[in-house]
Order: sequence, then structure tokens, then C-alpha cells
Amino acid sequence: MNFKEELKKRAKMVEEALERFLPPSSAYPPLIHQAMRYSVMGGGKRLRPSLVMAGAEAVGGSAASVLPAACAVELIHTYSLIHDDLPAMDNDDYRRGKLTNHKVFGEAIALLAGDALLTLAFQLLAENKAGSPEDNLKVIHEAALGAGTKGLIGGQVVDTFSAGEEVDEVTLEYIHRNKTGALYRISVRTGAILAGARPEQLEALSRYAEHLGLAFQITDDILDLVGEERIIGKPVGSDLKNKKATYPALFGLENSREKASLECSRALSALRDFGKEADFLRSLVEFVINRDY
Amino acid sequence: MNFKEELKKRAKMVEEALERFLPPSSAYPPLIHQAMRYSVMGGGKRLRPSLVMAGAEAVGGSAASVLPAACAVELIHTYSLIHDDLPAMDNDDYRRGKLTNHKVFGEAIALLAGDALLTLAFQLLAENKAGSPEDNLKVIHEAALGAGTKGLIGGQVVDTFSAGEEVDEVTLEYIHRNKTGALYRISVRTGAILAGARPEQLEALSRYAEHLGLAFQITDDILDLVGEERIIGKPVGSDLKNKKATYPALFGLENSREKASLECSRALSALRDFGKEADFLRSLVEFVINRDY
Repeated sequence: MNFKEELKKRAKMVEEALERFLPPSSAYPPLIHQAMRYSVMGGGKRLRPSLVMAGAEAVGGSAASVLPAACAVELIHTYSLIHDDLPAMDNDDYRRGKLTNHKVFGEAIALLAGDALLTLAFQLLAENKAGSPEDNLKVIHEAALGAGTKGLIGGQVVDTFSAGEEVDEVTLEYIHRNKTGALYRISVRTGAILAGARPEQLEALSRYAEHLGLAFQITDDILDLVGEERIIGKPVGSDLKNKKATYPALFGLENSREKASLECSRALSALRDFGKEADFLRSLVEFVINRDY
Repeated sequence: MNFKEELKKRAKMVEEALERFLPPSSAYPPLIHQAMRYSVMGGGKRLRPSLVMAGAEAVGGSAASVLPAACAVELIHTYSLIHDDLPAMDNDDYRRGKLTNHKVFGEAIALLAGDALLTLAFQLLAENKAGSPEDNLKVIHEAALGAGTKGLIGGQVVDTFSAGEEVDEVTLEYIHRNKTGALYRISVRTGAILAGARPEQLEALSRYAEHLGLAFQITDDILDLVGEERIIGKPVGSDLKNKKATYPALFGLENSREKASLECSRALSALRDFGKEADFLRSLVEFVINRDY
């Protein structure tokens, strides 16, 4: 499998589906729909929806059948980015090289566009045709739990209030497990549940997602550091002085690389009992550890 | 029926249930849970959850069985108030005589508390035990539609962007139908659907809710005007000069009173085929037109 080609193919499927599921820019009131589309159609690797599809395939389901659910997870991810970028939170002007939503549409519309994407996510999950009604309710319940204060929002709260503070390992892991990990876990489980996963399959895929999420976050921290060093010549270790909550800041670069590698091995081990239908999930692990972007 | 006693009894049921469904203030991370509780447990008439319960009773169901759904609607209402009060939106310091959420907890936590309440609402709807799984999915779908850009959020967008502008009747009705009306409609329909309403019952209850919502909004506008006149001696008609989008501003006080009264008659007519099991809904109409708060 050429993994990067395969990932692109999936991203294209997701983007075509998002195009269908988002209200047109012209729908009244147009400004809010333009703002929603601006951030959702603004690129990205579409890793989370690809995980939903791969979760379905791993247990014998089809990628296409879980597209509404895959898009729902991407909408939850996008809403969290828009709100995270607001002046009251991280106050970021750029994301993925583009102006952030509130820089283009103003704070009021950015706030409401985030609200609307979260709401639309649950609409899509309720419209989903794959899986039994019981399975769809289970997916909605898990999505709400994972996106709530015991998941995504909990991670954001602790992240926001520990900026500039001394952060210990327990707190750092809490932030990453919740701010990033919770959506990875939901993504794989959503696909698997809708495709009729057995309990032991679901349990194994959940472990896979948790280790993958941590590996992804650690390499993200490493890339930030190494990237900065290469581009602006900032010495390795300056994040440590700034007390930024990152793995390299807490453990050093080499230990962080080992930790990422260990999480990857654990992710692969979790897939032990799956056949070639889980190959995309396996290749994703290689991609996460070796990526340079 | 002593309607005010009955409404208080229902508000108490809802508040006890909200107390159970909201995470405790001490749950990690505590600040977000304190902020959620601050606004949800901050009083209010609990009209929307009472409508959910009354919708169930009107078609022979029980109020208690739809309590999680009733609480979900109240959480959606509260999230919209918290976000509406933020500096980026209406920038209000007080609500119901108490400091607004962001004045107590800061903007970041208020933003996330709103997000968390919306998310928790969908969690409660997915946990709900009344109704078949199909009915619960239908309720979640309707709640997402009504809370989204074709409902609540659409109304907020148009309201925010027409502040200070000349607003015509069509726009005013759009704002009220969506910003207020959509949740009234969802409330009654949610209770009725979960209690197994027949299509013609659901249709009649939807008409009831739409007329009740408009009547409520018009009397709200009238009370604002008359209340202000009595308290700060501002002459009737000053809202007209300030181009505030209200019914009295557009139609004058007397025409607005007639309009509210007409909407009430229409709401009552919609209940024509219901027996005494819809008496709470009928009394609510009287309450809405005659209230002084």
C-alpha cells in the first residue's frame, strides 16, 4: 500500500462528503455558513475521519458507509480549533498558514460558527444510516462524552490554565489524552461500532487509538521543537525555559523519541489479532512516527 | 389547576434532575463544572423543560419519563445565554440580577462552559430511556436542527447583525421564530415524540408551540418597554428611535398587544382536539399573555 496516496484518497472522499453535508454559502443567513465552510474546507490531513473509516474497515465494514460519522468527527475537531484560536483562548491569527476564523469573520461569527459545527456534528450522527439505531445512539453518547468535560473540553481547560505554569508528567498526559487523544479514540470506535465490532475488537481498537494519539502528540511536540530550531535557529531546550507543556520540555528530545517509538509499538501490538483489513491502521502508525509535517 | 403552583412544582422536578445530571463542582477540572452549574442552577422559570414534560403528558405520557430530555433542552437554552452574553456578542454584565458567567469565571471558561453544556445536552438525549431508539434519534436530529443555523443560531446571527439597523417585519419575525421559537417547538415536540405522539398530534402541538413562542416574545418586548417606562421613566417609543428590533417598536404598543392576543388564540385553537391532558399547555397560554415578569 502506498500510504500517502491512500490517505489522500480518503481525504478527498471526506472533503466531497463535507461539501455535501455543509449548508451552501448562500443559505440564509449566509455569513455563518461562509464562516463554517472557511474553516472546515481549509485543508488538513483529515486524520480523524480517516480513522473512522479505517475503524469500520478493520472489522469488515465499508469506509463509504460511515462517511457521515467521519465528517461529524471532523466537524467536532474544527469547532474546537475555531474556539481555541479565539482571543479569549489562544488568540491565534493564523492556522495552517491561513487567517483564523475570527480574523476573517469577526469574533461573534467565529464563536457562532464553532457552535454551529458542533451542533451539525450531532445532526450528522443522528442522520447516519450505517449501524442499528441502538449503535447510533451509542456513538452519539460516546461522541458527547469524548467531546465534553471528561474529554476534549477538559483537556482544553487544563491546557489553557497551565500555560506559563510548571507542568508535571501527570498533567501533560492529562492534557494530551483529552485534548488530542479523546477524539482519536472516538474516531476509531465510531467506525468500528457502526460496522458491528465485537467487544474484544472494540477494546483492542480503543487501545490502538490511545497509543496512536500519544505517539502523534509526542511527535508533534518534537516537530515543533526541531522545526523551530531549523527555521529560526532557536536552540533546543528553550521551550523548557519557557515552561511550555511539551514532551521534549519535560523529558528531553531523545527520551521523547523513545517514548513515541514505544507508543507506536504498543499501538501495533493492539492490532495483533487483526488481519490485512487493519493495514491502513498499521501504516498510519509508521506515518505518525516518521512524518516530517 | 393553580398554574403558578404547578409551574413551580415542575421547575423543582427539573432542578433536582439537573442537579443529578450535571457533573459535581469538585469533578476535575473543577472550574469548568463550577461555571456550568453557576449558570444552569441560576434560576429561571424553566418554561422549556416544562414544555417537554407537558408535550409528553398531552399525548398520554408521563412527565418524569422525559426528564433527561427536558433537562437537555434547558442546557441548550443556558449555553445560548452564556455565549450570547459574551463581550464578542451582547457584552452583558448581568442576567437575572446575577453577574454573567464570563464576569465571574472569565471569558475562556464561559466560552468552554457554553460548549460543554451544548455537548452535555446531546449526551443526555442519547442516554434518555423513554421512547424507542428510533424516536430518540429523531429527537436528537430535531434538536440539532433547531439549535443550528436554521434555528437558534440563525436567529442569533441575524439578531446580532441587525442591532442598530432598521429592521422590517420579516426580519423581526425571522429572529423571533428562530432565536426563541425554535426551542419552544423542539421542547413540545421532544416530549410528544418520546411519549409516542401520532403524526396529527405532533403537527397540532408544533402549531401550538410556534404561536406560543411568538406570543411569549411579543409580551417580552412589551414588558421590556412598559417595565422600563415604569422604572426609569423612559417614554414609550424611545426604542423606536433607537431602532431596537421589537414588536412595539415596529407596530406600536396597542397593535402588539392585539398581535400577542391573536397568537394566544391560535395557540389555544391548535389544542382543539386534546382533552384535559393538555390543560397545562392551555394554562401556559393564559400565563404568557397575562404575566408581569
